[in-house]
Amino acid sequence: MENFTPTDRTVVRRLPKRASYDRALVHQILDEGFVCHVGFVADGKPFVIPTAYGRLGDTLYLHGAKASRMLKALAAGAEACVTVTLVDGLVLARSAFHHSMNYRSVVVFGRASAVEDPREKLAAMRAFSEHLIPGRWDEVREPNERELTATLVLALPLAEVSAKVRAGAPVDDEEDLALPVWAGELPLRLSAGEPVRDPLVVGETPPSESVVAYARALNKR
Amino acid sequence: MENFTPTDRTVVRRLPKRASYDRALVHQILDEGFVCHVGFVADGKPFVIPTAYGRLGDTLYLHGAKASRMLKALAAGAEACVTVTLVDGLVLARSAFHHSMNYRSVVVFGRASAVEDPREKLAAMRAFSEHLIPGRWDEVREPNERELTATLVLALPLAEVSAKVRAGAPVDDEEDLALPVWAGELPLRLSAGEPVRDPLVVGETPPSESVVAYARALNKR
Repeated sequence: MENFTPTDRTVVRRLPKRASYDRALVHQILDEGFVCHVGFVADGKPFVIPTAYGRLGDTLYLHGAKASRMLKALAAGAEACVTVTLVDGLVLARSAFHHSMNYRSVVVFGRASAVEDPREKLAAMRAFSEHLIPGRWDEVREPNERELTATLVLALPLAEVSAKVRAGAPVDDEEDLALPVWAGELPLRLSAGEPVRDPLVVGETPPSESVVAYARALNKR
Repeated sequence: MENFTPTDRTVVRRLPKRASYDRALVHQILDEGFVCHVGFVADGKPFVIPTAYGRLGDTLYLHGAKASRMLKALAAGAEACVTVTLVDGLVLARSAFHHSMNYRSVVVFGRASAVEDPREKLAAMRAFSEHLIPGRWDEVREPNERELTATLVLALPLAEVSAKVRAGAPVDDEEDLALPVWAGELPLRLSAGEPVRDPLVVGETPPSESVVAYARALNKR
């Protein structure tokens, strides 16, 4: 896979050694995250809205109700900046100043367009579902005509993209290294609790395989 | 505490029953999160950058190096939209369409200004530190003159603010309730792993109380 080409917007200026344009890394970060923050401009002012997403190849899909202000703005051609951030840990230094976080983030710039082709739309819906929780799509009722019509799906090409990664130990000033203070990383991760059954579930139906497998994978990470 | 007053920008249009302007709830969400996504407009285009933050009363503080494009833009008076999102769980319905997430989010609009007063600046630095990991400030070396000078601290008033919360079970269509599919919520939470010691730590120094307490509080949640 070829790297993404940095552009004026994606060239990382602050701490450029943390930057990456590696396509496989970008895909990996996007596939591990599941909430993105979508930035757009309306009346000259910035808006940042959290939402779910899916990815197929080099396309990022967003979706929602047709009435969504964000989706309407993007479908009308507004520039988007979509950011996905994974927090991997707290970086605990000997000095307050050098505290930091370990993280992996991706920033995507571009214009999205509405997906009109019903097959691509259904594939995107499947991608949202499989992205949120793999295997679930085959366990549940697929979207019907009415639901597909009510849903606006946008495709944003992964073309102008950068990743940024910080990992590892704190970097303290030389003269602070002798301080008798514990320093290092406190790893953070998302984990799953016990599934909470909807009281309306019929009969004895146990948690589906997708739910059990997802929780297991998350908790083993 | 009085509620925030909705404005044209903060009145929640999509799923307004999820909206809240409750000040205590907004503070609670901001205090539980520790990464925000800052949106701003540069050359007419949107940028969304993840960063740490702190809160003191009704002021949200951002900080970073003076060279940061984001901080420079905001300090110069650019409008900001700062969003904090906490993901509480996956909402697993019987139909693909009704899948969702449980979350709590806060959106803040406004203009930030640079903090010049050295006492407020130091208080903000302490707030960043205590926000990231309570108790740490007293264990480590405080910022010195050079570090304070190198840091740009911005204050954003919490005035134009809204929260949005989804909680609870999936909401399926009546006719899907009879489907023999497990439905409910898979709770997600951030948890801490084993602290990773910086190999340069002197002597036998064990993890500080702040690190142990933080991990414990997170894992007990």
